Amino acid sequence: MAAPGPGFWPFGSEEVPSDPDNPTTAKAWCQVAQKFTGGISNKLCALLYGDAERPMGTGPKEAMCSEESRELCTCDQKPCSCQKPDVNYSALYSKDLLPASHGEAATLAFLQQVVDALLQYVVKTFDRSTKVIDFHYPNELMQAYNWELSEQPETLDGVLLNCKTTLKYAIKTGHPRYFNQLSTGLDMVGLAADWLTSTANTNMFTYEIAPVFVLLEYVTLKKMREMIGWPGGCGDGIFSPGGAISNLYAMLIARFKMFPEVKEKGMASLPRLIALTSEHSHFSVKKGAAALGIGTDSVILIKCDERGKMIPSDLERRIIEVKQKGFVPFFVSATAGTTVYGAFDPLIAIADVCKKYQIWMHVDAAWGGGLLMSRKHRWKLNGADRANSVTWNPHKMMGVPLQCSALLVREEGLMQGCNQMHASYLFQQDKHYDLSYDTGDKALQCGRHVDIFKLWLMWRAKGTEGFEAQIDKCLELAEYLYNKIKNREGYEMVFNGKPQHTNVCFWYVPPSLRNMEHNEERMRHLVKVAPVIKARMMEYGSTMVSYQPLGDKVNFFRMVISNPAASHQDIDFLTDEIERLGQDL
Amino acid sequence: MAAPGPGFWPFGSEEVPSDPDNPTTAKAWCQVAQKFTGGISNKLCALLYGDAERPMGTGPKEAMCSEESRELCTCDQKPCSCQKPDVNYSALYSKDLLPASHGEAATLAFLQQVVDALLQYVVKTFDRSTKVIDFHYPNELMQAYNWELSEQPETLDGVLLNCKTTLKYAIKTGHPRYFNQLSTGLDMVGLAADWLTSTANTNMFTYEIAPVFVLLEYVTLKKMREMIGWPGGCGDGIFSPGGAISNLYAMLIARFKMFPEVKEKGMASLPRLIALTSEHSHFSVKKGAAALGIGTDSVILIKCDERGKMIPSDLERRIIEVKQKGFVPFFVSATAGTTVYGAFDPLIAIADVCKKYQIWMHVDAAWGGGLLMSRKHRWKLNGADRANSVTWNPHKMMGVPLQCSALLVREEGLMQGCNQMHASYLFQQDKHYDLSYDTGDKALQCGRHVDIFKLWLMWRAKGTEGFEAQIDKCLELAEYLYNKIKNREGYEMVFNGKPQHTNVCFWYVPPSLRNMEHNEERMRHLVKVAPVIKARMMEYGSTMVSYQPLGDKVNFFRMVISNPAASHQDIDFLTDEIERLGQDL
Repeated sequence: MAAPGPGFWPFGSEEVPSDPDNPTTAKAWCQVAQKFTGGISNKLCALLYGDAERPMGTGPKEAMCSEESRELCTCDQKPCSCQKPDVNYSALYSKDLLPASHGEAATLAFLQQVVDALLQYVVKTFDRSTKVIDFHYPNELMQAYNWELSEQPETLDGVLLNCKTTLKYAIKTGHPRYFNQLSTGLDMVGLAADWLTSTANTNMFTYEIAPVFVLLEYVTLKKMREMIGWPGGCGDGIFSPGGAISNLYAMLIARFKMFPEVKEKGMASLPRLIALTSEHSHFSVKKGAAALGIGTDSVILIKCDERGKMIPSDLERRIIEVKQKGFVPFFVSATAGTTVYGAFDPLIAIADVCKKYQIWMHVDAAWGGGLLMSRKHRWKLNGADRANSVTWNPHKMMGVPLQCSALLVREEGLMQGCNQMHASYLFQQDKHYDLSYDTGDKALQCGRHVDIFKLWLMWRAKGTEGFEAQIDKCLELAEYLYNKIKNREGYEMVFNGKPQHTNVCFWYVPPSLRNMEHNEERMRHLVKVAPVIKARMMEYGSTMVSYQPLGDKVNFFRMVISNPAASHQDIDFLTDEIERLGQDL
Repeated sequence: MAAPGPGFWPFGSEEVPSDPDNPTTAKAWCQVAQKFTGGISNKLCALLYGDAERPMGTGPKEAMCSEESRELCTCDQKPCSCQKPDVNYSALYSKDLLPASHGEAATLAFLQQVVDALLQYVVKTFDRSTKVIDFHYPNELMQAYNWELSEQPETLDGVLLNCKTTLKYAIKTGHPRYFNQLSTGLDMVGLAADWLTSTANTNMFTYEIAPVFVLLEYVTLKKMREMIGWPGGCGDGIFSPGGAISNLYAMLIARFKMFPEVKEKGMASLPRLIALTSEHSHFSVKKGAAALGIGTDSVILIKCDERGKMIPSDLERRIIEVKQKGFVPFFVSATAGTTVYGAFDPLIAIADVCKKYQIWMHVDAAWGGGLLMSRKHRWKLNGADRANSVTWNPHKMMGVPLQCSALLVREEGLMQGCNQMHASYLFQQDKHYDLSYDTGDKALQCGRHVDIFKLWLMWRAKGTEGFEAQIDKCLELAEYLYNKIKNREGYEMVFNGKPQHTNVCFWYVPPSLRNMEHNEERMRHLVKVAPVIKARMMEYGSTMVSYQPLGDKVNFFRMVISNPAASHQDIDFLTDEIERLGQDL
């Protein structure tokens, strides 16, 4: 593992070489070195001049020039080759940084020091010999360090230590053996883009304060609509803070489309509305219904087949049923890639039903949307082009850093109609530019975080074909796992057949249970296996995978692969680890 | 303005010096330089060895060692002293970065290159000689560069250029003369923390995947509740994606508290609910009511005094009125720091009314909450301790990078009761740690961005007293502006008296209108003055300040100061600039 990038040497220079890009003398070299080369510049100058003559800078603070260079590196590697600038952070405070006058050198040194720690973390993230997590129980972690907030400031030394301590206990979500969530991986271009986003530190609500980001959102949403199959990429959309909010927005817009008066009059003015979604759908559909005043009793869960796909005939049956009661079915949320099974609802058949009964069709493709990038797998979303709205989270299958979730809406103008409140202090109508680029009134949020740049930059860097390759690889790995365990002793599949997405659901059956009859007694044991193995995994920090019960099925492992860093060996490692940790149960 | 930090020299080294931390020979020096000193290492080696003998590395890619070092710097400074590593990014792609095998050197070089550009942007941000914005109309900006997404990947050269182009057109929200929004400034510790957050790339919903961040949220929310004045800091809370969502959560929880059955039964089961807020309150209260199925007609806007503060007697009058109609007032949203006037509603009087009629009292202190950090100004929020919930956005007055908004709730357990859906695949009940740290079911969101670290780290770095000093300074500057213009020719204050917050609202009256009678004709002219001056400011890129109409008051400037970088000279600059640009109108 290489050392991180260099620090920044914060001496001010009294005497600038005539051409700093072309130093030709030792003295000129030394001056350049003082400006750019971090801790080694001292040594260079010592070499060139001899120690006695080592020039000292005249930085804004004497503290910065102190010889007491502090050891801040907490990397595990000994001997450590990390270079540290000779800044005495223990005598500096945040108020010495920009915008403080003469704060520039200290700022650059400090930020570079943080970046060095981050680069080290990035390298470790992909190093299979490091732990995925250094797990501690909440009370242990609370006591492991002083996390409290106080009246007095800390020195920058302390601030840097806080950063390193935080990284020490962080979970490496980009580690090749982290399979715990639908969002895994750490994309380098995405990371760079997110750093830039933080630095630009703005807000998406108006073009005037986020001109580039607003345009990039426009370009990217259009491209995503094209990939869904909407003619010419027409329609509308927005990036929202996660799939649950995107789904809520969809439900909100669907209700407004059918009953625009709801905006002023509320639900009291409406007949009883019914939303329909499958029993395997994400819980955000119910959360949304609760929030919007529709109520969870008005969310009907449609039956799924044994693979977790909604049964369209059951959907139609329930629609007829509620209509007979005088209720109004207004929203069907189909799922493209369910959370646990990774199932794709049959969208074409569902679209036919929605069309027949004139119901808004939403596709929750938060997890499955990424497959639209793959020529091999996109057929699984056939019919999504007939939806009225689609949720698609690039932070899941496409590996974009969290958060990045899009809601795409086929009909233009609806979002604005549904959510706008004409706040004149934000969306002045007499601005000098085209107001259609002020997107803030399309959503419930006022301020909105910039989530677009990382997706856009990754897309530029990979091209659609790069996303395709990465997604195809994850699906291939899932198939590898499935083929490996489907007939292997000690494994039972939760459902039969090749996975549609990267979800592979299985029980690990320890030797003690293998010859037991399939009865209550066995169930009582089996339910504990996955939690214990998971707890052991976390304590070893070797890998992480999720488990859960579902319906009448007791705790089983749900393996998902969305991390492009994962390889066949990591899949092998996972099964070996499960067997190692579950052997004695 | 200094050059940014150095790049990372990506050569692998064939021959490692025995002790890289203590090079003693020219050759050893050169090897160290190759590893750490960016583009100048070539020059150093040339100095030590002579050009002919310059050692070449054996990096993973021949391309990286190419002599065709590309000029990527787009800084405005000529001659530019930015150091570039000699990596040929035009032959590298994102797939050559980690997790690619041997991708480490390229990754570190690439990320360092991005950081160099960001550091340069940071330094420029605080440089008053740079533009706040390089403004282009949307169609111009769309054509200024190729922003489109395609099938094929771009080289890293292109990716870096994309970053630099994006920064070129970005608005410098940390610039000392950017006064356009309630969120301004660029805090160095906050920025570092946000870079770390991006690198950790995780999600707040469970302790197992965000252990430190979940603890820090716990610690920080408790501290914030203490500052509000709730005994022992007891209560609950969450960081949400912005003040509008925090306000919506408050309304949702208030409704649930009064009518828990709404979660299942929806609004149909309830009497007509009424929310009350002042006519100067933020539009998110109405947005929330529309979304929750309450309807905007059921939001009653209470009259304000001429300073923009809610009149408690009018509040009581309207409550009595709606109760007489059989409606149920369930939610009063008082504002601590209104968006335009910066007014603080009289919280104690409002709390008395809420108590009398048993109505949930919410305080929208998104903008004003920061004043709780100031011993001098916190009295303006007296009575907030009697609220049931408080919205407080540290990304506004406290200068935390976007986004960072907290909702604090006095009663524990309500948030969970209101929003939980028991998704067993996320919140397994048989985990091996204390489940109270799994916060995901407290909100509508499922995944939740990590917004806590930047606030926590800034608080550690500044201490409460650091926030206090920064906030007091902004208020002092607002008073300086007020004193400067209140009797100055060409200015008219929108309301009389010293500002309560940093909002200073005024008309600039150009010479041509100064002697005009206050009639329709004058109004027709005056309405155009602020938009034209603002448009000119943006085209010059010299400064930015917001304007808007409000009620019967035509377009006026709303100056706000939340940027610790602003100084008295910047205030002087603003008035000079308004006069310069508005002189001829």
